[in-house]
Amino acid sequence: MSSYCVATYRSFDDKADFHKKAQSIAVGLTVGSWTELPEAQKAEMEKHLGIVREVAVHESDVPGERYADIRIAYPDLNFSRDIPALLVTVFGKLSMDGKIKLLDIDFSEEFLSAFPGPKFGLQGIRDLLSVHDRPLLMSIFKSVVGHDLDNLREQFYKQALGGVDLIKDDEILFENPLTPIEKRVEVCMDAARRASEQTGQKLLYAVNLTGPTSQLISQARKAINAGANALLFNVLSYGYDVLHELSRNPDITVPIAAHPALAGALYPSRHYGIAAPLLLGKLMRVAGADLSLFPSPYGSVVMPKEENLAVKEALLDAALPVKPTLPVPSAGIHPGIVPLIWQDFGLDVVVNAGGGIHGHPMGTVAGGHAFRQAIEAAMNHVPLEEKAKQHPELEQAIALWGIRK
Amino acid sequence: MSSYCVATYRSFDDKADFHKKAQSIAVGLTVGSWTELPEAQKAEMEKHLGIVREVAVHESDVPGERYADIRIAYPDLNFSRDIPALLVTVFGKLSMDGKIKLLDIDFSEEFLSAFPGPKFGLQGIRDLLSVHDRPLLMSIFKSVVGHDLDNLREQFYKQALGGVDLIKDDEILFENPLTPIEKRVEVCMDAARRASEQTGQKLLYAVNLTGPTSQLISQARKAINAGANALLFNVLSYGYDVLHELSRNPDITVPIAAHPALAGALYPSRHYGIAAPLLLGKLMRVAGADLSLFPSPYGSVVMPKEENLAVKEALLDAALPVKPTLPVPSAGIHPGIVPLIWQDFGLDVVVNAGGGIHGHPMGTVAGGHAFRQAIEAAMNHVPLEEKAKQHPELEQAIALWGIRK
Repeated sequence: MSSYCVATYRSFDDKADFHKKAQSIAVGLTVGSWTELPEAQKAEMEKHLGIVREVAVHESDVPGERYADIRIAYPDLNFSRDIPALLVTVFGKLSMDGKIKLLDIDFSEEFLSAFPGPKFGLQGIRDLLSVHDRPLLMSIFKSVVGHDLDNLREQFYKQALGGVDLIKDDEILFENPLTPIEKRVEVCMDAARRASEQTGQKLLYAVNLTGPTSQLISQARKAINAGANALLFNVLSYGYDVLHELSRNPDITVPIAAHPALAGALYPSRHYGIAAPLLLGKLMRVAGADLSLFPSPYGSVVMPKEENLAVKEALLDAALPVKPTLPVPSAGIHPGIVPLIWQDFGLDVVVNAGGGIHGHPMGTVAGGHAFRQAIEAAMNHVPLEEKAKQHPELEQAIALWGIRK
Repeated sequence: MSSYCVATYRSFDDKADFHKKAQSIAVGLTVGSWTELPEAQKAEMEKHLGIVREVAVHESDVPGERYADIRIAYPDLNFSRDIPALLVTVFGKLSMDGKIKLLDIDFSEEFLSAFPGPKFGLQGIRDLLSVHDRPLLMSIFKSVVGHDLDNLREQFYKQALGGVDLIKDDEILFENPLTPIEKRVEVCMDAARRASEQTGQKLLYAVNLTGPTSQLISQARKAINAGANALLFNVLSYGYDVLHELSRNPDITVPIAAHPALAGALYPSRHYGIAAPLLLGKLMRVAGADLSLFPSPYGSVVMPKEENLAVKEALLDAALPVKPTLPVPSAGIHPGIVPLIWQDFGLDVVVNAGGGIHGHPMGTVAGGHAFRQAIEAAMNHVPLEEKAKQHPELEQAIALWGIRK
C-alpha cells in the first residue's frame, strides 16, 4: 500500500493550462519523466510517481489574473522522514518556477510517525502552570539589549508580580557577557520564586536559545540545569529540523516557544512563499513547538484576520495526531483588545503583550493586573468599561489605549 | 571602537515619513527605546544603538507607490557571530512589519572574523580538477528517484564520458534503500575512474547530503570515506548555520555545492523577502559554499538578468575577505546558450545542464561533447554555426535547441 503526502499550491498564470501544469509538477518532482518510459518500467516506477489530486481554476479579483489551487500527492517512498526532505521535494525547485505559493501540506500517517510533536502542548503547559480555566497571559521583556543582570531581575520581578503566566526573552537577546544564559536563568528564576510567594502563581520563563546549531542541545541543557523551565527558539533562522531534534530530545524537559522571526520574508506575498497557517501553524506543531507566536490581527504587523485564525486552527486541529500547540497571537496587544481576543480565539490562547504591560501609566505591575482584569471581564461577558469602575489599573489602561470593538 | 553590520532594506509605503521609520527601526531593533532614556543611561547604551546610515526616497514606476532604500548600522556588540543571530536582529521582527525587503548586508570585519568562508572556492575547485583556462561543465542526474545502483552507474558513466567536470545528484534524492549514499558514491566514483581512463579528465561528484541535522557531519564523513569528492547541500532547508558548521569542520575535506531549493519562497517578491544576491550570493559564500547554484537568466525559472549578475558579483566580489564561490547559473541551459553565458559570466562560471545533456539526439555522451564544443567555440569567438560544421554533436544540438542570441 502506497502512502502520500499531499501539497496544495496556488499557481498564478495568465494563460497556462493548469491541468497540464499540475501534471508536469507531479511527474517532474518525482520520477522526472513518464510518457517516454517503456511500459515495463512504468510498472516499476508507478509507486514513485506523483499524482494530481485536484485542479481548481479560479478567476482572480485582479483583472486579467488567473490562478489555480492545485493538489499533488507525493509518494512517501521518495523522501526521508524529515521536514527538509519533504519541503525540498514539494517546493524546492518549484518555488523558483514562476508565481506559485505553497498553501498547505497534508502529512501521511506514515510520515507523521517520525514526529512525536510537542512534548507538552496546550494541556501540558496548562498543567505546568495549574491554570485550566482562562486564557494565559505572557509578557515580553522590553529593551534588554545592553542591560545587566540587575536590570533584568528587576524587570522580571515586576512582570511576575503583575500576574503573568509566562515571560519570554526578547528574541534579539543573544549570548552576551552581560547576561549569559545561565546567569539570566538564575536571576530570573529567583525573581520568579520571590514573586510567586506574593502572587501564589506559577510562572514559565522562556529563555532565548541561541548560538551555533551543533551546540543548541548543550546550551539548552545548561539553561535547564540552571533552572530554566521553558525555551524560546527562533525556528526559521535554524530550520524546522533543528526544532524537531530539540523537541524530541529526552534531555529537553521543558516546553519550547517558537518565535516567528523572519516569517515575514516567507508568508505575506500573494504570489510567492509559504502560507502562514503552514509556516507558523502546522509545521511548527509537527516539529514540536509547545507554543507558537504569530502576528496578531490587531497590531501594525499585518496579516488578514482569516489567516490568523487559520494559523490558530492549524495549531489546534484535532485531526492532527500530535498534541495541540498553544496559539500566541502577538503584537499590538493592550487590555482593550482582550474581549476581541476572547471572541476570536476563545479559552485556549496566550494573551501576549510587551508595550501593553510595560507602558501602563501605573507601571509594569499594574500593566499585568490590567490584563488579568480584562481577561476576567471578557470571560464573564462584563464590558471593560463596567469592570474598570472597580479596577483603577484597567481604568487607566483603557484611558490610555481605548477599547477596540 | 564600535563596529557595525549594515543592513539595506527597501521599504514600501504610500505615506510614511521614511526618515522617521528608519529611526524607529534603528532604535526598535537595538536598544528598544531612546528618547525616553535618562541622559546618564544614554551614555551607557549608545554603543548598543542602531544608526541610520542612509534614507533614499524614490517614486516608484507603479502609480501612487513610494519606496525608500534604507541603510541601518547594527552594533556587533548586540549579536553573536552567527548568521541566525544576525538575520534575526536585522530582519526577524521587521520582516513582518509591512512591505519591506532585505536587500543586502555589509558584514563588519569583526563579524566576518568568525567565518573562514569556502574551504576550496573557485581556485580550489579548479586546482582539484586541473582546469584553469575555461568555464567548467556540470551535469545533473536525470530521473533518479526509484532507480537502482546499476542505473545510476550507467547514467554517471555516460555523463562522465561526455567530458563534464562535475556531476551533481538530483537534490530530491534522499537516503533510500535502493541507492544509499555510501553505495551511490562507490558505484559512481568507480564509473568516474573508468571514464577518466578514457577522457583523461578529473571529475567531482557532488553527492546529496541529507537527513537529520545532527547527523549531517557523520553522513558526510561516511560519504567521504566511501570516496566522495564533493557534496551537494540544500542549504535553505537546513539554515546557513548548518552550512557554516559543515564547511568549517576539518573532517569535511571536499567542496560543498549549495543548492537553491526553496529560494523561490524568499527572493522573487518585489515587496517581501530577501534579495537573491544576498540569499544565494553573499550569505552562501560567507557560510562556506564552494559552488552556489542559482536560477540562470536563460530558462523558465524567472529572475531578472541584472539580479542574476548581482548574484554572480556577490559570489566573486574581491572586497569580501573570503575565497570566491563558483557561480552556477542553472536551468534552461543547452549548447546554443553557451555564447551568452560566456558573454554574461566570463571564464569563472560552471555551465550546468540536465536536459541539455541527457536530451541530446545522439545521447548523453554526445550531449556532454556538444557543450564542450560550444564552450571552446565561445571562448575563441567562433560562431556556433561555424564550429558545428566540424562537430556533429554540436550541429545536432543546435538543430534541436537553436542558438539564443
